[in-house]
Amino acid sequence: MKVSELGEFALIDLIKRTIEQSQNRDILSRQQVVTGIGDDAAVWRSRHGLALATTDTLVENVHFRRGMGTWEDVGWKALAVSLSDIAAMGGLAGYALISLAMPPSANVEEITALYRGITELANKHDTALVGGNITRASELSITSTVVGSSSGNEVLRRSTARPGDLIAITGHTGLAAAGLRMLTRHQSTDRDTQTVLRNACLRPQPRLAEGQVLLKHGVRTAIDISDGLLSDLTQICRASRLGARVEISKLPIHPALKQAFPLVALELILSGGEDYELLFTADKDVIERVAKEIPVTAIGEMTSGRGDVYLVDDRGRILSPARRGWEHFKS
Amino acid sequence: MKVSELGEFALIDLIKRTIEQSQNRDILSRQQVVTGIGDDAAVWRSRHGLALATTDTLVENVHFRRGMGTWEDVGWKALAVSLSDIAAMGGLAGYALISLAMPPSANVEEITALYRGITELANKHDTALVGGNITRASELSITSTVVGSSSGNEVLRRSTARPGDLIAITGHTGLAAAGLRMLTRHQSTDRDTQTVLRNACLRPQPRLAEGQVLLKHGVRTAIDISDGLLSDLTQICRASRLGARVEISKLPIHPALKQAFPLVALELILSGGEDYELLFTADKDVIERVAKEIPVTAIGEMTSGRGDVYLVDDRGRILSPARRGWEHFKS
Repeated sequence: MKVSELGEFALIDLIKRTIEQSQNRDILSRQQVVTGIGDDAAVWRSRHGLALATTDTLVENVHFRRGMGTWEDVGWKALAVSLSDIAAMGGLAGYALISLAMPPSANVEEITALYRGITELANKHDTALVGGNITRASELSITSTVVGSSSGNEVLRRSTARPGDLIAITGHTGLAAAGLRMLTRHQSTDRDTQTVLRNACLRPQPRLAEGQVLLKHGVRTAIDISDGLLSDLTQICRASRLGARVEISKLPIHPALKQAFPLVALELILSGGEDYELLFTADKDVIERVAKEIPVTAIGEMTSGRGDVYLVDDRGRILSPARRGWEHFKS
Repeated sequence: MKVSELGEFALIDLIKRTIEQSQNRDILSRQQVVTGIGDDAAVWRSRHGLALATTDTLVENVHFRRGMGTWEDVGWKALAVSLSDIAAMGGLAGYALISLAMPPSANVEEITALYRGITELANKHDTALVGGNITRASELSITSTVVGSSSGNEVLRRSTARPGDLIAITGHTGLAAAGLRMLTRHQSTDRDTQTVLRNACLRPQPRLAEGQVLLKHGVRTAIDISDGLLSDLTQICRASRLGARVEISKLPIHPALKQAFPLVALELILSGGEDYELLFTADKDVIERVAKEIPVTAIGEMTSGRGDVYLVDDRGRILSPARRGWEHFKS
C-alpha cells in the first residue's frame, strides 16, 4: 500500500505500533523515558528535572517556496517549528542542531542567509546552535532538532485533558494561513494588515514564554497549533480519549484576518495551520489565572464523547466542520 | 556562487563562520556549551556530567539505493551514522529521534521495515527511540538525531592530538566501500567474503563500546571514519593544527578485502568511507593499554606539519595519496 492511500495519521499510528512491537521496553524504563512517541516532544528524566527533545523537517515546495520570503525567513521558520514543540510541552529551549540537505546547485549566499535566520531566532530564545550536518540531496530540506528541559517535574501533554476542562488558545489562529494566501495570490491589502499576515506566515513566534506561564499556573494539557485548530484539538481528544465542543462565537478573530479575508475567516481560524499558538485545556480557575498574565481565549469545553469535535453556533446548534486541517500525503 | 563550486568542506567552514558571527555568545556560555559546531557531536555540561547530541541525514540515491539491501538495512544505517558520532566522542547513547521525509508514493511496508531496522540497532545499544516526525518530500530521506551522555567529564575530540601521538584505528577500513562495489557491480566472491563485505556496507557497527574503552584508558582524540581514513585523519590534523604520517605497511588488510579486491585494496583502505571505525591518537603507552582490551592497530604518527597527511612506504619514501575520500557536492 502507498503512503498516500493510508494517510498521514494512520501512518503515524502504524509507525508507532511498529516501534512498540520491535523496541525493547526495558530500555525505555532504564533510560527513564517519561513521554515517548505521540506527543509534541519526547521527555525523559535526567538527574535534575526533565529533558525534552523534538525534531521537525521543512521541505522546499512543501513547507516553503523560494521567493515568498527571504532565506532568513526560511531559517527562522525551520527552527521555530521545533521550538514550538518544546513550548507545547511547557519546556525551556536549550540546544539546537540543524541538518541541511541541498542540491549542489544551491546558492551559497542563500544558505548562509538561512543560517542567519536560524541564529536570529535561536538568540531570541536563549538557544545555542551547537551542531548539525550538511548533505547532498535533490531538493532542499532543513531538519531542526531542539533539546530542552523542564525546570520542574511536569510537562504539558496531549493526553491529560479531563471532561469539563475549558479549551483555550493563546493569541489568534488563521493568520499564518491568511498570510500564505495573501503571498501566493499576491493579494493587496493595507500595509498594517499585510505586515501582520506576512509575519504570521513567515516568522511564526514559538510560544515558549506562554508555555511556561501555562505550566506555572497548573495547566497540564497542551499542543501547538501546527496542523490547524480543529485538527490539533482532535489530537488532544484522541490522546485523552475525550471529545470537545468549540463555540464559534467565542473564537477570536484578528482584525487583520477580518480585513483581508472576511468570507473565509472562520475557515482559516478553524483549519488554517502553522500559527504555532498553544491550544490547551484546564479548569476554569486555572484559565482565569493564566488570563491575568497572558492573552488567552476560552473557546469551548472538553466532553466525554470519544474523539468527536463539535462546532456549536451561538444558538447551541451543532455544525459540522468542513475540513479538519492539513493532512500531509493526501491531497 | 553554487555550493558545488565551493565544495563541502569550504561550505562547512563558511556556515561555521556565519553562525559564529550571528550567534549571541553569551548564550553559549550560559548554556554551558563545551563543544559546539566542528566535532562529531555537540557537547554541553549538564548538572551531572556531559550531554552529547548529533544529527545526520541519509538521502535515497545519495547514501543508499533501493534494492541493494533490505529496508531494515536502510533503517539500521540511518541510526548507525549518528550513534557512530556519539561513539567518536566516547559517549553513551541514550535517546534517538527520527525525522522521515518521503514521497506520497512510498510503500507502507517498506517504511515500517525501515523503522524495524532502526529499533533493531537501537535495542543493541540501549537507545530509546523516543520521537520523530514524518513529512512529505519528493525523495526519501531519514534524519536521525541521538542524544547521549558521557559518564565522566571528558570526551574524545578532534582538536586534542599532540605531535608524537601514535595514530591508531579500531578494526579494518575499506570493507564498506568494498561491499558497495560488490553490491553495485554484482561481483561474485565466496560466501564468507560476501557476508563480511555486505554487512560492512549495509549494517555498519557503531563503535560505542570501543569509544568507552578509549576514553577509559586516557585517549582524548578521536573521530569516526565516515568519509575515509585519510579524509578523517585530515580533519583531526586541521582541528589539532598538526600533520600526520601514515605507514602503509602498518595498515591492516582484512582477508575479505584482499580476497575480493586485491588490486584496489589499499585505495579502499585509505579512501573508502562509511566504515564507522574509530580513528584515534594517543601516547604509545595508552595505545598499548587499549590494545589489551580491544583490537586496534597503530598506523602512523602525528607530526608538527600543519594539515599535511603523508603516506610513507616501508622504505620511508613519501607517497602522495591519490584521493582523500568522499567529498559531497563535488563529483
